[in-house]
Amino acid sequence: MRDFFQLPPDQIYLCGNSLGPLPRETSGRLANLIEAQWGRDLVRCWNRHGWMELPLRTGDKIARLIGAGPGEVVVADSTSVNLYKVLCAALSHQARVAPQRSIVLTEDENFPSDLYIAAELCRERGFELAAVKEEAALSAAIDERVAVLLLTEVNYRSALRHDMKNLTRLAREAGALTVWDLSHSAGAMPLDLTEAGPDFAVGCGYKYLCGGPGAPGYLWVNPGLAGACVQPLTGWMGHDRPFDFKQQYEPAPGIGRFLCGTPPILSLAALECGLDLFLAAEPLGGMGAVRHKSLGLSRLFMETVKAWGIESGLRVVSPAEPARRGSHVALSLEGELSGAGYAVMQALIARGVIGDFRAGEPGNAARPDLLRFGLTPLTLGFAELARALGHLRDILDRREWRQERFTKREKVT
Amino acid sequence: MRDFFQLPPDQIYLCGNSLGPLPRETSGRLANLIEAQWGRDLVRCWNRHGWMELPLRTGDKIARLIGAGPGEVVVADSTSVNLYKVLCAALSHQARVAPQRSIVLTEDENFPSDLYIAAELCRERGFELAAVKEEAALSAAIDERVAVLLLTEVNYRSALRHDMKNLTRLAREAGALTVWDLSHSAGAMPLDLTEAGPDFAVGCGYKYLCGGPGAPGYLWVNPGLAGACVQPLTGWMGHDRPFDFKQQYEPAPGIGRFLCGTPPILSLAALECGLDLFLAAEPLGGMGAVRHKSLGLSRLFMETVKAWGIESGLRVVSPAEPARRGSHVALSLEGELSGAGYAVMQALIARGVIGDFRAGEPGNAARPDLLRFGLTPLTLGFAELARALGHLRDILDRREWRQERFTKREKVT
Repeated sequence: MRDFFQLPPDQIYLCGNSLGPLPRETSGRLANLIEAQWGRDLVRCWNRHGWMELPLRTGDKIARLIGAGPGEVVVADSTSVNLYKVLCAALSHQARVAPQRSIVLTEDENFPSDLYIAAELCRERGFELAAVKEEAALSAAIDERVAVLLLTEVNYRSALRHDMKNLTRLAREAGALTVWDLSHSAGAMPLDLTEAGPDFAVGCGYKYLCGGPGAPGYLWVNPGLAGACVQPLTGWMGHDRPFDFKQQYEPAPGIGRFLCGTPPILSLAALECGLDLFLAAEPLGGMGAVRHKSLGLSRLFMETVKAWGIESGLRVVSPAEPARRGSHVALSLEGELSGAGYAVMQALIARGVIGDFRAGEPGNAARPDLLRFGLTPLTLGFAELARALGHLRDILDRREWRQERFTKREKVT
Repeated sequence: MRDFFQLPPDQIYLCGNSLGPLPRETSGRLANLIEAQWGRDLVRCWNRHGWMELPLRTGDKIARLIGAGPGEVVVADSTSVNLYKVLCAALSHQARVAPQRSIVLTEDENFPSDLYIAAELCRERGFELAAVKEEAALSAAIDERVAVLLLTEVNYRSALRHDMKNLTRLAREAGALTVWDLSHSAGAMPLDLTEAGPDFAVGCGYKYLCGGPGAPGYLWVNPGLAGACVQPLTGWMGHDRPFDFKQQYEPAPGIGRFLCGTPPILSLAALECGLDLFLAAEPLGGMGAVRHKSLGLSRLFMETVKAWGIESGLRVVSPAEPARRGSHVALSLEGELSGAGYAVMQALIARGVIGDFRAGEPGNAARPDLLRFGLTPLTLGFAELARALGHLRDILDRREWRQERFTKREKVT
C-alpha cells in the first residue's frame, strides 16, 4: 500500500496518528474538482458531480472500517462539534427518559478536547462531569446515576485501548448511554460497532484515515436511536428537504439530521482519497491485516526498547498485551533522561525520525513526559522502523540530546 | 479583476451569490499546499507553513472587507455553527445581565437556515423566537422584552437590504444585543461594523467571497464584548494554550475563544485565494468601486425588465432604491408566466445563462416563486449582462419555456 502514498524519502514518519501521510491521488483529484468541476460547472456541481452526497458517501466508506451499516455514518464538521452534537442528543434523551440520572462519566486521561466540550455542556445542562483517575475504577463507577459514559477507545498518550464491548455492555445494563471517540482507533484496527452496540461514536478524519489537515470528522448513531434524536445544531443540511427552504425545521429521518451547515467539499474530497485507500486494502486482508501489521510494528518497537533495559533511561508506557493497545508506542524518560524528552525528540527529528513529544504534568507521576511514536501500518515498514530505533539508540549512546541545538525550546506543535 | 478568475467561456454566470466563481490561483495554491507542504513537511506544517495562523489570518483579511479591526474576526466551521456560537453567547450574556428579556426578534424572511438554528436554540433555552412578517414592523417590535435582534442584512430572496446602522442603534437603545448575518453582503458592498457597532456578526465564505464550495464561515464579535463571552463549542483551538493539553478549558482572551476544533486547512487555504483578490482590488477602489459596479449592474437589469412592462409577465421584486438593495435581482412571475419560473430558468440555463429558481410558498402572496440573478461585480461585465437579458427576452418572445424539456422537473439545486 505504501506506493499509494507520497512520503518524503529522507524521513521516517512516526506521526501518522497526528496527521496522516498524503495519498498520491489527493492532489490530482482536488485539482480536478477545482478546475473541471467548480471552475466549469459552478453551482450545478452540487447535483452533477455528487457534492450533495459527499457527507453520506464518505460516511458509508467509514462505516466499512468501523463495522457500521450503510446510511449510519455522516462526515461533517470537526470531531469536537460532532462530539457536542451526540453528547447533546444523549443528554436530551436521558433528560426525557431518565431525568434522575445526573452524571456524565469519563476519565481524566480522555482527550483534553473531549473533556473541554463535555465540561462546558455539563455545566450548561446541569450535569456533573465525573472523571475517574484510573481505568480500573471505570467499571465500578458505572451505576444508576450515570446518564452517559463518554470514553475514547485508544488513549492518545499511552495507547491503552479500552474494552469497548465490555464497557458498553456494563453501561447498557446500568441504563447509561455510551459515546465513544474512535479518533485513535479507526484506520488502525478493525472495529465492530454493530456488535459492540454503543449508542454514539465520533472520530477524526486527519489521523489514521489520511484525510488531510483538519479533515472533517464523522459521527455514527446506533440506527435504533438515530431517528429519535434531537441535536442542537439544526442547520439546513440536516433538514428533511433542505431545498424546499421551508421556515420550519424538520429533521431528516435518520443519521442525516446530524448534518448542519454546507459541507466543506474540498476537505471532504481529500478525505475520500484516504478512505479509498483503506477500501483498496480490503482484498489484501483489510483492517484485519492492518491490525496484524500494526501489532507487529509496536511489538518490535517495545521489545527492542525493553531489551535495552531501564538503564537506557526509556520505559515503555504502552500496554504489552496486544488486545490492550492501539497503534502508537509511548515511552517515558527516567534517570539521566528525566526532563530530556523534548531534546531527545529534537535529536531524532534532526536525523529525520519524526515522532512527537508530549509534555506531562509536573509533579503528577500518572502523567509523565512522553515520547510518542505513531505506527501507521499502511505506510510504515519493519526495516524502516528498525532504522528509527537505531537512530534512537545512537542518540542515547552518544548523548546527542545534550547538544544545545536540541535542548533550546522553540514553539511546540 | 475578471482576468483573475477562471470562468467557463460559454456561460454567463449569475449565481455567484450561491457559489462564487473560481479564482485562477486556487488550484495552484492548493496543489502546493498538498504536495510541497503536507506531502513534504507533514505534521510540522502547522508551524512551518503557518497553518495554525490561518483562522486568524484569513479573519484579518475579511475584517478589511467588513470594517472590522485586526484580531476581531475568525474563520471557522460553517455559518450555521458560527451563528449558533454567537447566539448562544448573546443569550448567555443576556441571561446574566437582563434575565427578564425573553424574546429573540427576527423576521419571517430571514434565511431558513438561520431560523432553524435560532428556533431550536430558543426552544432549548426557554426564549421565544418572534418573527415579524414585514420589515416595517421591525422597529416597533424592538422593545424591552427583546434579548437579541437577529437579522440578515441582505435578504436572500428579494435582495432587500436592511438599514443595519439604524436597526442596531434602535436595538442598543432598547438594551437588546444584535446579531447580523452578512452572507449576502460581504464581498458585494462596503460594510463598516466598527461604525454600525452591532454586537455579533457571521457570514459565509463561499458566496461573494469566492472561497469555494462549502468554504468555512466567519464570525466577528464586538471587541468590547469578545473577551466576556461564553460560547458552548469549547474545542481545543479556542483554548488559551491549546498545546499545553491541559484538562481544564481556559478560553483564549479575545475572539480566539470562538474557534472550536482543528481547522480545515484545505478549505481555509482556498478561501484565502478568494479574499486575496478582494484585497488586490483595494488600489482600484476597493469595496466602494465594487458597490458602484454592483449597483450599475442591478440598475441595468431592473430598468430593462421594467421597460418591458408588466405584460412581459415579469415583475421586479428587488428594491429600486440603491441603498436598499444587495447585489442580486429577483423577479416574480405573473399572467402567462405564473408557475413557469422553473421552466423559464431551465430555458435560460440551456442558453448558458446560469441563474437560479427559488420556489415560493403556494398561497402566500408574500413569498412568490422567484427568478434570482446574482451580480458579482468582480467578474460580471455590463455587455455580458445585456446579452443575458437578450436571452431572457428571446425566451419570452418565442415562448421557449413551454418546451417539454424545460417544464419537466428534475432534482432542484
